[in-house]
Amino acid sequence: MNKHFAKRMNEIRASEIREILKLTAQPGIISFAGGLPAPELFPLEEMKEASTAVLNKEGRKALQYSTTEGDPNLRQAIAKRMNDKRGTGLDIDSVLITSGSQQGLDMCGKLLLDEGDVVLCESPTYIGAISAFKIFGPRFVEVPTDDDGLIIDELEERIRNNDKVKMIYVIPDFQNPSGRCWSLERRRQFMELVNKYDIPVVEDSPYAELRFAGTDEPSLKSLDTKNLVIFLGTFSKTFCPGLRVAWIAADPDVIRKLVLIKQGTDLHTSTLAQMQINEWLEAFDLDAQVEKIREVYKERQKVMIESMDRLFPTDQVSYTRPDGGLFLWMTLPATHCARELLKRCLEVKVAFVPGGSFFPVGDHENTLRLNFSAMPPEQIRIGVERMAEVLKTYLAEPGKAGQ
Amino acid sequence: MNKHFAKRMNEIRASEIREILKLTAQPGIISFAGGLPAPELFPLEEMKEASTAVLNKEGRKALQYSTTEGDPNLRQAIAKRMNDKRGTGLDIDSVLITSGSQQGLDMCGKLLLDEGDVVLCESPTYIGAISAFKIFGPRFVEVPTDDDGLIIDELEERIRNNDKVKMIYVIPDFQNPSGRCWSLERRRQFMELVNKYDIPVVEDSPYAELRFAGTDEPSLKSLDTKNLVIFLGTFSKTFCPGLRVAWIAADPDVIRKLVLIKQGTDLHTSTLAQMQINEWLEAFDLDAQVEKIREVYKERQKVMIESMDRLFPTDQVSYTRPDGGLFLWMTLPATHCARELLKRCLEVKVAFVPGGSFFPVGDHENTLRLNFSAMPPEQIRIGVERMAEVLKTYLAEPGKAGQ
Repeated sequence: MNKHFAKRMNEIRASEIREILKLTAQPGIISFAGGLPAPELFPLEEMKEASTAVLNKEGRKALQYSTTEGDPNLRQAIAKRMNDKRGTGLDIDSVLITSGSQQGLDMCGKLLLDEGDVVLCESPTYIGAISAFKIFGPRFVEVPTDDDGLIIDELEERIRNNDKVKMIYVIPDFQNPSGRCWSLERRRQFMELVNKYDIPVVEDSPYAELRFAGTDEPSLKSLDTKNLVIFLGTFSKTFCPGLRVAWIAADPDVIRKLVLIKQGTDLHTSTLAQMQINEWLEAFDLDAQVEKIREVYKERQKVMIESMDRLFPTDQVSYTRPDGGLFLWMTLPATHCARELLKRCLEVKVAFVPGGSFFPVGDHENTLRLNFSAMPPEQIRIGVERMAEVLKTYLAEPGKAGQ
Repeated sequence: MNKHFAKRMNEIRASEIREILKLTAQPGIISFAGGLPAPELFPLEEMKEASTAVLNKEGRKALQYSTTEGDPNLRQAIAKRMNDKRGTGLDIDSVLITSGSQQGLDMCGKLLLDEGDVVLCESPTYIGAISAFKIFGPRFVEVPTDDDGLIIDELEERIRNNDKVKMIYVIPDFQNPSGRCWSLERRRQFMELVNKYDIPVVEDSPYAELRFAGTDEPSLKSLDTKNLVIFLGTFSKTFCPGLRVAWIAADPDVIRKLVLIKQGTDLHTSTLAQMQINEWLEAFDLDAQVEKIREVYKERQKVMIESMDRLFPTDQVSYTRPDGGLFLWMTLPATHCARELLKRCLEVKVAFVPGGSFFPVGDHENTLRLNFSAMPPEQIRIGVERMAEVLKTYLAEPGKAGQ
């Protein structure tokens, strides 16, 4: 059969993360590898109530086909929340329910990308977006970043030097993998440039509400005066990911096109799942739930950073100290390789994700991503201790020349 | 924003069915237009039990991310059922859970279709498959059909006359829209030809279990000796569609590629929905549920056909008399147009879908699809009566010359 596959399949390979996550399923592994929310925070009892209430109230309607756009009550609730929390001025026609934000990425690829088009993205960027867009055969061009976000001059240079820039893909809030959050100034400069060159933006924002310190920054969507921003939001990190309910917020004309795309993609997102989430939102308190998650993740991140500060050779390695999200990003000396470090860490039952995968163009093998949301503090402490031992031994070696 | 859209978006337009279905949402409309299962048959009380049981048993695991392949218990149950009912010899590695069969179509497009590739399909064919594949820029070539299915000589001629035939898309069991079911001989001849020319087949089979008369035919997958068939199955018509849980059955090597595709498409199908269906399958009786559906649809179809036989001008129109499924397919004189008929039927509050949309290449404006699953017998009787009146008047007119 293989010879019949479309050409794009030559580019589609098993992701390294996936292989690592299989290893972390072994008992006893302390995993900083995944990007899982802490399941102990999922409001299970509330969800039971909401689930029963929906089937009692909505009956068989909850089990039937429903509209591609999604449940109107849920779309309304999302528009309202985004207007309250993210500075937008959306109405229901600007919101389309998706089956997870991953589907939002697939649909943006379908909407915007012809083969050979250029996608500009942060360096590093979310690996799942690369997988989603790759299907449509674009060329990825990375834009360097610093602690304030994507570097604007570097972006402009790449816009000027590349024909056919059809999309800028960014994660401005506590980015996966780096944890970084763009400054307000950077957001404004970015939107100025985007307006000047008239380029569509996909703003992927699953982590914005998970802020532990500092003040909220406005979404790019809220600064979007020319309807160039397609915003992807999700309940996966603030409620739970297993229901696969997320949304796209964009100009109603764009939403109408995306609805046609979604019809061909999966007809609609689970009727029952949408109603369950909407029922939960009506009956319970998302703000309180987010606050609970924030406190727990903040504590876990604090434990991780304190342990790293205490035990890691901080003259040789550096790492981000984000004000929110799920991840830290660490950089080894250029002579050393995170894949080799992982191999050795797995021997002492600690896992993380080497950073190379997060660069569509390649290189940066001396970087790695550490997740702090999924392990309890005591495990984080032990994991960092074990990593520290391995690190010291590994960094004492000369490393590979020229790496 | 429009100028930034990918070229494929020029081809993606609102489907006529969608527009008609909006009209049928008006109160008092008797709709033969949709393809909805009868919701009164959904096992609501059982579903409540299953839903509560899952959240009690699985707890927060039901709300967490899960594997792309899908719930192993559900995949096992599907493999077993297909082996029992559809003549296959599958194991769990041959089954991948999808978010509805519509997603299966999208994923087959991603797997197989490069721009300009030829997709052979039945004439008429399922409109949702056309939408799914169109994203990847293929050329559709229709293969004529008769009451026994796709006509083999016509298929061979088109395989010979077209380079780059990359997929044959077929619905052998009670096809949407025609209701036809392929004979056993036709299935064997088809697979012989497919083997001879070595062409991948997408077998879309949502309706096979909804047989009212005659004996089951084997799936093409069960006759597939060269691993060329990708089978799409679903719970939408035998259980309920609102959960969006379906599956692909194919060679494990193909499944592994499709898993990579699904990762980029939506990560995985709702964990909770998969567990709910699996729990329901374990606790209750799908065979009994299917039997209940069969009896009701059989009765509805009988009422529809009897009314049509009695009231329609059968010297001028013809229609299929399927042994199962959800649809009848009707043909007007070549001089008359189903769109015009629909306009007049809507005035007396009856709706159906004109058949033209089911032909990717166009024409056949004198055909129409009638759904009998979604309306109770009394409504069907009244709807057919009203249609008969409109038909008589319309067919008494000369129609459009040359149409």
